[in-house]
Amino acid sequence: MPLTEEQKAEIEAARAEPRPTLRAVSEGMERWLYRPVEVLDHGLIRVIDYMGDDSAITQAARVSYGRGTKSVSNDEGLIRYLMRHWHSTPFEMCEIKLHVKLPVFVARQWIRHRTANVNEYSARYSILDREFYIPAPEHLAAQSTVNNQGRGAVLEGDEAARVLDWLRADAGRAYDHYEAMLSQAQADGTPQAGLARELARMNLPANIYTQWYWKVDLHNLFHFLRLRADPHAQYEIRVYAEALCEIVKDWVPAAYAAFEDYRLGAVQFSAKGMGCLRRMLAGEVVTQETSGMSKGEWREFEGALEI
Amino acid sequence: MPLTEEQKAEIEAARAEPRPTLRAVSEGMERWLYRPVEVLDHGLIRVIDYMGDDSAITQAARVSYGRGTKSVSNDEGLIRYLMRHWHSTPFEMCEIKLHVKLPVFVARQWIRHRTANVNEYSARYSILDREFYIPAPEHLAAQSTVNNQGRGAVLEGDEAARVLDWLRADAGRAYDHYEAMLSQAQADGTPQAGLARELARMNLPANIYTQWYWKVDLHNLFHFLRLRADPHAQYEIRVYAEALCEIVKDWVPAAYAAFEDYRLGAVQFSAKGMGCLRRMLAGEVVTQETSGMSKGEWREFEGALEI
Amino acid sequence: MPLTEEQKAEIEAARAEPRPTLRAVSEGMERWLYRPVEVLDHGLIRVIDYMGDDSAITQAARVSYGRGTKSVSNDEGLIRYLMRHWHSTPFEMCEIKLHVKLPVFVARQWIRHRTANVNEYSARYSILDREFYIPAPEHLAAQSTVNNQGRGAVLEGDEAARVLDWLRADAGRAYDHYEAMLSQAQADGTPQAGLARELARMNLPANIYTQWYWKVDLHNLFHFLRLRADPHAQYEIRVYAEALCEIVKDWVPAAYAAFEDYRLGAVQFSAKGMGCLRRMLAGEVVTQETSGMSKGEWREFEGALEI
Amino acid sequence: MPLTEEQKAEIEAARAEPRPTLRAVSEGMERWLYRPVEVLDHGLIRVIDYMGDDSAITQAARVSYGRGTKSVSNDEGLIRYLMRHWHSTPFEMCEIKLHVKLPVFVARQWIRHRTANVNEYSARYSILDREFYIPAPEHLAAQSTVNNQGRGAVLEGDEAARVLDWLRADAGRAYDHYEAMLSQAQADGTPQAGLARELARMNLPANIYTQWYWKVDLHNLFHFLRLRADPHAQYEIRVYAEALCEIVKDWVPAAYAAFEDYRLGAVQFSAKGMGCLRRMLAGEVVTQETSGMSKGEWREFEGALEI
Repeated sequence: MPLTEEQKAEIEAARAEPRPTLRAVSEGMERWLYRPVEVLDHGLIRVIDYMGDDSAITQAARVSYGRGTKSVSNDEGLIRYLMRHWHSTPFEMCEIKLHVKLPVFVARQWIRHRTANVNEYSARYSILDREFYIPAPEHLAAQSTVNNQGRGAVLEGDEAARVLDWLRADAGRAYDHYEAMLSQAQADGTPQAGLARELARMNLPANIYTQWYWKVDLHNLFHFLRLRADPHAQYEIRVYAEALCEIVKDWVPAAYAAFEDYRLGAVQFSAKGMGCLRRMLAGEVVTQETSGMSKGEWREFEGALEI
Repeated sequence: MPLTEEQKAEIEAARAEPRPTLRAVSEGMERWLYRPVEVLDHGLIRVIDYMGDDSAITQAARVSYGRGTKSVSNDEGLIRYLMRHWHSTPFEMCEIKLHVKLPVFVARQWIRHRTANVNEYSARYSILDREFYIPAPEHLAAQSTVNNQGRGAVLEGDEAARVLDWLRADAGRAYDHYEAMLSQAQADGTPQAGLARELARMNLPANIYTQWYWKVDLHNLFHFLRLRADPHAQYEIRVYAEALCEIVKDWVPAAYAAFEDYRLGAVQFSAKGMGCLRRMLAGEVVTQETSGMSKGEWREFEGALEI
Repeated sequence: MPLTEEQKAEIEAARAEPRPTLRAVSEGMERWLYRPVEVLDHGLIRVIDYMGDDSAITQAARVSYGRGTKSVSNDEGLIRYLMRHWHSTPFEMCEIKLHVKLPVFVARQWIRHRTANVNEYSARYSILDREFYIPAPEHLAAQSTVNNQGRGAVLEGDEAARVLDWLRADAGRAYDHYEAMLSQAQADGTPQAGLARELARMNLPANIYTQWYWKVDLHNLFHFLRLRADPHAQYEIRVYAEALCEIVKDWVPAAYAAFEDYRLGAVQFSAKGMGCLRRMLAGEVVTQETSGMSKGEWREFEGALEI
Repeated sequence: MPLTEEQKAEIEAARAEPRPTLRAVSEGMERWLYRPVEVLDHGLIRVIDYMGDDSAITQAARVSYGRGTKSVSNDEGLIRYLMRHWHSTPFEMCEIKLHVKLPVFVARQWIRHRTANVNEYSARYSILDREFYIPAPEHLAAQSTVNNQGRGAVLEGDEAARVLDWLRADAGRAYDHYEAMLSQAQADGTPQAGLARELARMNLPANIYTQWYWKVDLHNLFHFLRLRADPHAQYEIRVYAEALCEIVKDWVPAAYAAFEDYRLGAVQFSAKGMGCLRRMLAGEVVTQETSGMSKGEWREFEGALEI
């Protein structure tokens, strides 16, 4: 369901009137404010508000009186130092508030990140829209044969068609019945009481879209992104994380660059792994058999080293 | 789906072997351990573990070396004092771990209480059982006409029958298709790839049952119970809260008694309400018009005073 | 130690350059930004940043696309409703960041509120200033004879003088030795190694001032204010809470008004207290003996009713 | 101040009476219960209670009905897998409660770990004991010349003696005045009011000992240990962390072994570092100049590889 004309007008109105503030302003972030970023077939992310910028991180780290920036390069160096040494509190001094529209099964993964503020659209109080996530054909994948919680090859032909038919038909029928149960009239107009919304919603499948306001500090957002922008995350939440990465990059460029280097692109080796690594650097040929690692660990070790 | 014989045997085995411990033991709680308490049509609560008892609360409050109980009545008085004056940290020193089976739409309300530890059965990794919550006829209620997020009179006759038919049929069909999508064979035996579990689950409605381990401290459990054992809470989560109340009463009887007096049965009056109350005690007849309250507030005020 | 000229200049510079933003702006709050509010003899509170305003609360409650304000009076009514019914998540959608300078013993009470972000000035890394809280004579009070954790009458004459002398002399001497231990030269100029800062600080008393950046959402700030702006809170933290109340009143006037009515000025009666109240409203004369309450509870009950 | 005879008797009494329980029991942990582990000159750690064992972790991960242990080696493999892949929630299903006595400046570092429950001895309500941390000569170190928040060589001769004299004398005098201010009689017996405890405590230095009950789940305890048992942590908190490591090793041996391999002994390389590592494994000689790293990063990189 695309935005209504009224919603578009509300967004334009919110963007039309810049007002003066004495607070830290991130020019890069102002461009994103309120605009819907489309995700999946009906989902979106909108930045509703933010607090702080790169300088706010170093200002808090220094507990300083002024904006405290001696120079941009000083700030960048300090931000990299803080990220490298797991000093998390200065990053908690930036905050972002989002409006997110997402399928319920994605929302259920997302909410597991508890250190955030959430206000979800209430299906006890309101009626949900007829909007369901139906995967694009290229994302309709078989169960992975090597990873118990992953997916493998794309489904083909008849099988894909059958799956899409079922997903569409079951969602549509469930919603038809949801509406019919809620209604104070039967199909032929005969009056009926109408089922309570808090009960009727139980008929709706997990691919229906819900919405919430979600607010989180930058440290916890980075933690979310590290787990959810990861290739092992389920595709349907990963696309939200990836869209957020683009936004954060414009909001706090120095912090995001440090995050890419020290978190997203970083690799951790176990004590055992470090032992192997040191032997390899000394010229020894190490194999799984001589590594002391399980097959799974060794596969991950080789993968990290790209050997 | 009742417990399997294997599950019953596991529970019996766990209950069969008491072992010695030097820790605080709550006799009342030992009786509940592992036993399934049935909730709704297929749900359950099982106590998996607990830490502390009434004395553990006062012992922490006194930061004492020994069990610190001078007398049971001393402990009770101190517990009442702590509860009355909102000293929450001593109550955080008790902990409970539960195994809960509950419909997904109840789980979604429950998880909003963020100060707890949760480990949910993963539908990315495993296949959910064919179990759906279908309300008993006496709980199949119409939308409330006065409360936007509540329910009113029980549905009757044909309307009730229609609703139950739809709930049952849609759940059954959704599950049939869930199984068919997951399967590596079509109905006639022709092989197919089988849809990834993380995708197939999106077809399942919100009344399917899920399971989790949930661990929480006593202070946060009381907060949960105050909100969810309240008459305004949705029936389907309230029955879980009420079942928990019975368990907590046996675990920490003194703390539970204080909770009943100072939280469950307590009433808070606003500054405005206190003004009215004092005028009424001085003999004045106060009406909504002379109260300064809105109609909604006045109705709640009268309700609290039972006048 | 008053602000240095450099610090004043930094604050003026930060206030001199309003910049355009599309975010929600609270005019009332802009006036407070960066300006030091003096608390105690050397303490201060400065607002460094904020997110949201009254409308941001209702906007989140409605999960709406635009600013969503139909009218100011609608917003006020909804805010009052949310506060009255303990809907906390919409209030979590506003955030404030403060720079606070405060004595260490106050900081130790403050930090017990865990749901906030803190970045404290590090005495491992930096050298603390020679600034100590010395109570004004009117706040130098005796131990309360009725309240184990409160204070009673103001100290007089010689006793007050002795106390002030000791506080001043011990703090001064401790700081002299702190400096002497840190120094790489003895008093006569002879070189010495100089004790590590992380060790030297252990000589400093609890009335030395520290500083931190503290960031919290509005819901948790209200919780802090309810406990710390209370007459039972220790005076030295209460003055910080009271200063914050003035700031919050200008930031989110409608939310603050609801907070005053439903929290600050509200009274909670236990189940037992409600029983007495109903009997009194029915004309019965209830005494402590017939109330079923302990003496302490009855005293608080009478106090709340001002009878 | 060694334990009093009464305290020793309380501890012995608590250890004297094993009681039957149906809960998970960790034999290794039962041996630690209540016994004081001495830390620093007057500090201690005592295990007051615990919940769960190694099997409780895998049981929660499987959301199983019984204890769920197929075999010990299965459990160990699963625990290693969970730790390696940052599945934190199963580790949150174990909990520990400690009684800790520690200097105030250590308590101030410790409390920064917010995801825990704390109940501290109240100096508003009670009188603190005359006990101060005075470093042993071998821990009296100079400020590090390379690390702004670390210590270097041990102080020697006169300088060490001066420091110890000041620490002892200032603490003693501060405590004498604390007592004199609290007292309801002057030294010569003349009555006086006696300063409120909540004020008198401000004269006490940061090396005075305080006590608290501290309760935390295993995941958050591991996080604490990773940061505080690290060589970069301040010695005075590190010794507490190291004492805790010994306790946890006996409580949950499989989880602790995984923690040692994947956290304590693990090394994380940045994206940049991984690039260098792959070049080195391919036979290239990489130097700081050709690494793209800053000098600080390169030093840490070399340190990790022990080259």
